[in-house]
Amino acid sequence: MRKIYVIGIGAGDPDHLTLQAVKALNKADAFFIMEKGEEKSDLTGLRRDVLDAHVTGRPYRLVEARDPERDRKTSDYSPAVDDWRRRRADLYERFIVDDLAEDECGAFLVWGDPALYDSTLGILEEILERGAVEFDHEVVPGISSVSALLAKHRTGLNRVARPVQITTGRRLAEGWPEGVDDVVVMLDARQAFTRHLDQDLYIYWGAYVGTPDEILVQGRLSDVSDRIEELRARARERKGWIMDTYLLRRG
Amino acid sequence: MRKIYVIGIGAGDPDHLTLQAVKALNKADAFFIMEKGEEKSDLTGLRRDVLDAHVTGRPYRLVEARDPERDRKTSDYSPAVDDWRRRRADLYERFIVDDLAEDECGAFLVWGDPALYDSTLGILEEILERGAVEFDHEVVPGISSVSALLAKHRTGLNRVARPVQITTGRRLAEGWPEGVDDVVVMLDARQAFTRHLDQDLYIYWGAYVGTPDEILVQGRLSDVSDRIEELRARARERKGWIMDTYLLRRG
Ligand SMILES: C[S@@+](CC[C@H](N)C(=O)[O-])C[C@H]1O[C@@H](n2cnc3c(N)ncnc32)[C@H](O)[C@@H]1O
Ligand SMILES: C[S@@+](CC[C@H](N)C(=O)[O-])C[C@H]1O[C@@H](n2cnc3c(N)ncnc32)[C@H](O)[C@@H]1O
Repeated sequence: MRKIYVIGIGAGDPDHLTLQAVKALNKADAFFIMEKGEEKSDLTGLRRDVLDAHVTGRPYRLVEARDPERDRKTSDYSPAVDDWRRRRADLYERFIVDDLAEDECGAFLVWGDPALYDSTLGILEEILERGAVEFDHEVVPGISSVSALLAKHRTGLNRVARPVQITTGRRLAEGWPEGVDDVVVMLDARQAFTRHLDQDLYIYWGAYVGTPDEILVQGRLSDVSDRIEELRARARERKGWIMDTYLLRRG
Repeated sequence: MRKIYVIGIGAGDPDHLTLQAVKALNKADAFFIMEKGEEKSDLTGLRRDVLDAHVTGRPYRLVEARDPERDRKTSDYSPAVDDWRRRRADLYERFIVDDLAEDECGAFLVWGDPALYDSTLGILEEILERGAVEFDHEVVPGISSVSALLAKHRTGLNRVARPVQITTGRRLAEGWPEGVDDVVVMLDARQAFTRHLDQDLYIYWGAYVGTPDEILVQGRLSDVSDRIEELRARARERKGWIMDTYLLRRG
């Protein structure tokens, strides 16, 4: 039976790789890497560097595909998203069927931790449900951008015995989540923190965390919000893309 | 100036260690390890094994201390907890002052990820605030028990574009958190999931995840709840202690 590894490679720093990930990398015959358009080619480069540095004395094949275009203007549950997922599943399925022999092992390199806002596991499930190909799969956890961010700020995700919510920028823009004073925000294209300037919040913000471009800011939200907006806009313009994450802490 | 590393070592599997953690381990002159009473001596052993396996060609000192007893029956914000933290801070401060020379480097090995329900960072802050000793500190993120659990169950922390809450057993026992359908529960000594059998929930449960004693169960909560309670009680009796974590998913 074919074997698929889904390997979390950490969120930017090549040293985020775990020993378990290095071992899994060295078992794969072929790697599948998704190109995400110009702005993400730096990240594809980082994945290739990880392979160069850690796959030792073992030949491997690299299969690259272009991420199906996705209509970013439509909402999260639209048919456009279903369609995008289906086309991604088609690509992954073709990789498994066409690029791996029956007794071979393939791997998907996933940014950060595969458990956090990543579609790989869901798409593999979908392929298994279709039933056209069988495979065994194993997940290797990775350092998420959230862990990386908090380590750099030397703070915790939650306060003692308190809950924390992890959510998206889109949701934070709709309102402050109920029942929590600590909120981690990901996938925020529109600086949703600016909607909450009236609250007594502290922000731990980071962009490109773990990479040479890393930017970190922390402080009272009302004090540092403008600076973050400015840094963010400038960095985004310079590099053509940005990934940032933040923790908001109330009170 | 003294330098302190706070190193996340992962949640049970020695291969959770990151390359960054291995590098940090090899910079420390002394390690501080807290003994947590008989039931936790297995974990102390694991920390020693990590040092044996990964600190190479470099002498180091191991400083062990017994965790101050804590009155577990009192509530989270009681004076007993403040007192316990203060005594822990005293121990850590003594380690830094007495066991490290001015130009040396010390390390705390933290279970899982230092950002998640761990007191080390807060205690180091407290020591810095006291002002009796100065030091620089750096945090190395680790694979949390949450990431490890979800990898084993091959599922995500959150569903597409949805939020997730991470909370404690004590809080889940008080009621289902507002505004989320996905809840991760840690530090649950009283099987708080049994309070929510009336809901349509799916559970991904794991104890001693990543260790040779690992137990995993997933299924509809109403179907598997009894089995988890039984497995949990048996394991706890056999080993004398247990650590388990779970994700509850609604709908
Ligand atoms: C599709 S999600 C993938 C998350 C990834 N699986 C993880 O564990 O970090 C992409 C989001 O992750 C966050 N992100 C990923 N890498 C980051 C980094 N190096 N610095 C800051 N944020 C990052 C950003 O919020 C970005 O919008
Ligand atoms: C004080 S917290 C520390 C958490 C740790 N910093 C982390 O990142 O996993 C202890 C709780 O973590 C969870 N835990 C830690 N290791 C675990 C493991 N190997 N399997 C299951 N749960 C674990 C349990 O919920 C336990 O009550």
